[in-house]
Amino acid sequence: MTATVAASAPASARLVAELTAALGAGNVLHRRDELVVYECDGYVIEKAVPDVVVFPSCTEDVVAVVKICNRHEVPFVPRGAGTSLAGGTLPIGGGVMIGLTRMKRILEVDTRDRYAIVEAGVVNVWLTRALAGTGLHFAPDPSSQTACTIGGNVATNAGGPHTLKYGVTVNHVRGLEMVTPEGEVVQIGGVVEDQPGYDLTGLIVGSEGTFGIVTKVIVGLSRDPEAGRTLLAVFDTVEASVEAVSGIVAAGIVPAALEMIDNLMIRAVEAAFKFGFPVDAGAVLIIEIDGVDAALDHEAQAISEIVQAHHGKVEKAIAWKTREEPEYKGIWKSRKMAFGAIGRVSPTFCTQDGVVPRTALPHILKFMEGVSERCQVRIANVFHAGDGNLHPIILFDDADPDQVRRALQASVEILDECIRLGGSVTGEHGIGVEKLAMMPKLFTPDDLAAMTAVHDALNPDGRCSPAKKIPVGGHCIERTGPGRRAPA
Amino acid sequence: MTATVAASAPASARLVAELTAALGAGNVLHRRDELVVYECDGYVIEKAVPDVVVFPSCTEDVVAVVKICNRHEVPFVPRGAGTSLAGGTLPIGGGVMIGLTRMKRILEVDTRDRYAIVEAGVVNVWLTRALAGTGLHFAPDPSSQTACTIGGNVATNAGGPHTLKYGVTVNHVRGLEMVTPEGEVVQIGGVVEDQPGYDLTGLIVGSEGTFGIVTKVIVGLSRDPEAGRTLLAVFDTVEASVEAVSGIVAAGIVPAALEMIDNLMIRAVEAAFKFGFPVDAGAVLIIEIDGVDAALDHEAQAISEIVQAHHGKVEKAIAWKTREEPEYKGIWKSRKMAFGAIGRVSPTFCTQDGVVPRTALPHILKFMEGVSERCQVRIANVFHAGDGNLHPIILFDDADPDQVRRALQASVEILDECIRLGGSVTGEHGIGVEKLAMMPKLFTPDDLAAMTAVHDALNPDGRCSPAKKIPVGGHCIERTGPGRRAPA
Repeated sequence: MTATVAASAPASARLVAELTAALGAGNVLHRRDELVVYECDGYVIEKAVPDVVVFPSCTEDVVAVVKICNRHEVPFVPRGAGTSLAGGTLPIGGGVMIGLTRMKRILEVDTRDRYAIVEAGVVNVWLTRALAGTGLHFAPDPSSQTACTIGGNVATNAGGPHTLKYGVTVNHVRGLEMVTPEGEVVQIGGVVEDQPGYDLTGLIVGSEGTFGIVTKVIVGLSRDPEAGRTLLAVFDTVEASVEAVSGIVAAGIVPAALEMIDNLMIRAVEAAFKFGFPVDAGAVLIIEIDGVDAALDHEAQAISEIVQAHHGKVEKAIAWKTREEPEYKGIWKSRKMAFGAIGRVSPTFCTQDGVVPRTALPHILKFMEGVSERCQVRIANVFHAGDGNLHPIILFDDADPDQVRRALQASVEILDECIRLGGSVTGEHGIGVEKLAMMPKLFTPDDLAAMTAVHDALNPDGRCSPAKKIPVGGHCIERTGPGRRAPA
Repeated sequence: MTATVAASAPASARLVAELTAALGAGNVLHRRDELVVYECDGYVIEKAVPDVVVFPSCTEDVVAVVKICNRHEVPFVPRGAGTSLAGGTLPIGGGVMIGLTRMKRILEVDTRDRYAIVEAGVVNVWLTRALAGTGLHFAPDPSSQTACTIGGNVATNAGGPHTLKYGVTVNHVRGLEMVTPEGEVVQIGGVVEDQPGYDLTGLIVGSEGTFGIVTKVIVGLSRDPEAGRTLLAVFDTVEASVEAVSGIVAAGIVPAALEMIDNLMIRAVEAAFKFGFPVDAGAVLIIEIDGVDAALDHEAQAISEIVQAHHGKVEKAIAWKTREEPEYKGIWKSRKMAFGAIGRVSPTFCTQDGVVPRTALPHILKFMEGVSERCQVRIANVFHAGDGNLHPIILFDDADPDQVRRALQASVEILDECIRLGGSVTGEHGIGVEKLAMMPKLFTPDDLAAMTAVHDALNPDGRCSPAKKIPVGGHCIERTGPGRRAPA
């Protein structure tokens, strides 16, 4: 037995035997050809192969696995659907990957006190589907919601287009069940929102698995709005669209969503899907409001006037009663499929996740034009404009080492500028392993020491999700390239 | 030098001399007659006198004080306005109290990105006053808002009547500056809402000073609503009023506030202030909605119908454009002065702070009637009905030891029932020293061990705010009685 099992070494036969005895052979993978599937998560640039992948069916299974890992002194890392974008599921240093996709039961739904208790592997959209007809839904709606798990949403504190009005995952989590790195089961928070004690729920949501394996989640449910209006506004320039965003917010309107798609992305989407977007537009805004029906026309009118004042035009406006209506889904499909459409215009891309104060959006967009010219890479933009959360998509060909270098340079320049503007290097994708090196740019040594103290208190051996979230210790990763092949 | 200075021992001359050299004589109190003022906070049942009280003027002063305390190995505890209700400011074990009331500057207001940076001693309402005319305000509005400090709001994660719609303090804090128990200055969070790293902001808000001395707070500002409606509804019974609360919430209405005042409290308020409340009503609800003017009449009508369906009557309904209008303030005065009115009907009282799932309100109110009969004490109720946060006020005479015993018994029975219903023992007042003994009823040893691990990581010597929030170590407190003399 060694302190850590290197990524390439086969798992010890004894470890595999114990895991198999605990979970059954059908829930343990250890052949190299089975394991490579788990070498990375979505869109990420590092790879690491686990020694074993296990699929627990219940909390007791997770406890058993964690205790076995501790006895063998091997690291372990949780994984949901693997849709994370920053390497949060990478088994750095090898060890055991705990796949939670078989813990997929919705255990309880209480429509009166508006909560649900779900296992960590429940897919985000399943919960909302299970709530059909109750008038309630689970608010966080990442673009990957048809695949990503609620446990994964908790790990990354996931957001989505409707984050602007409804908040991120932490705003909708009331409690958690977690298996600690020592293999103890703790219950944190509960079904009511006011809980004494430290806010460990808030601490654990977004901690990317570094405090333990979350096995159950008590989520708060949100009431469906009575109605909504979704507007598609077209602008000649990105700058004009962003000024309109500021105008809307300054008018006291809190849109349910406020998304920007720039020309390069519009063209990619049109080439792939032919939604009928104006391919010569500088930018498109999707502006959505929801609430009490009686107020919405008044508010939609105010938005139209602001759009016009910024030389934009409302190309389409739909009134809806539920988010299930086909016309509603049509508009959002263009946004949610944007990343998939990139394959039409570039062999490879790298999605960034910067944040700036909303008033700095015109500046950072201008800055990115400069980066694009200086580094000679194309940069597409589709992002959550309402909360200043950028997703610049840097296009390049990974067959050309010089393009790779320039794409990486562009990423660094953009994120450094976000920091300089008082923003940050991730709005919702997390730090994972990808941005560990950026943390010292954002935090002083004293700030990082405070985080490390908390990390070490709850994960003293560092065996649970090593080399994630905060730079603790030194770990080797296999950097395969700066981006991922786009879907064709 | 001793490890801890007992509460009654005079401070060492050397300690006082060093503090005086660092802060100036005008900022250091150490005479017994000066110190007794600081022996308790608002409405609390334990007392402890500090050895020294210091008033830093800036973060550097706080650093100096903390470093001196560490050299002398004496505990230290922060204090804002002392309006906390659970003993959060008590200097258990003596030592140095750090009064933050002279750190009262509003350092920056940014109305475009909607944040303000304030020193910890800024009084809650000062900030909203400073924002007059900008269309923005600071949302948390505890009843003590004209006195309590924003640093204190952070320590207890304070709520208020408008918590129902706008959330508690943590929802409005973007970042903090804190002096750690070792005397290092850390910056946590920032002006934008998305921050990588652990959510230490969320952890520290509500930690009751156990992780350090918060010196600056970056708060998010909320837009004033366009308009509002405030309704006063009268019911024959408490049960009917609470069923109406459920009806309103079930109809998908999110009131800005939803407060219940029961008959005993109505009579106390009337005796004291003569607001013209119906003294024979079983209960009164204050129901407030705000938002886009065009939607409000529609929503107010829906509320009226629900009130009527529960055999209630809307006695008064006002339409307002700002919360500064005299008629608006008149209605809220009755609620905010309720505690002061108690002096008319009882020599002493003890305010509790339980939470139950909202649907359990009818049950807990019925249960409290039983407690009142069993323990032979009167219990008045004025509380945040919309979020199930109870404030039963137990009336008794502290000159009668048997009444004291029965009042304490009533408190315990009510809070135990809150726990049994899946609720908790504090909604917004905190654990302080008062409810430390309740923590093991709410949390398993493993849960408490997780909290203790975090506590010990950030406050390893336990010298910062000892014996607060979580039961760590053993400390002696001088229990003077179960309540406080009511204002006459």
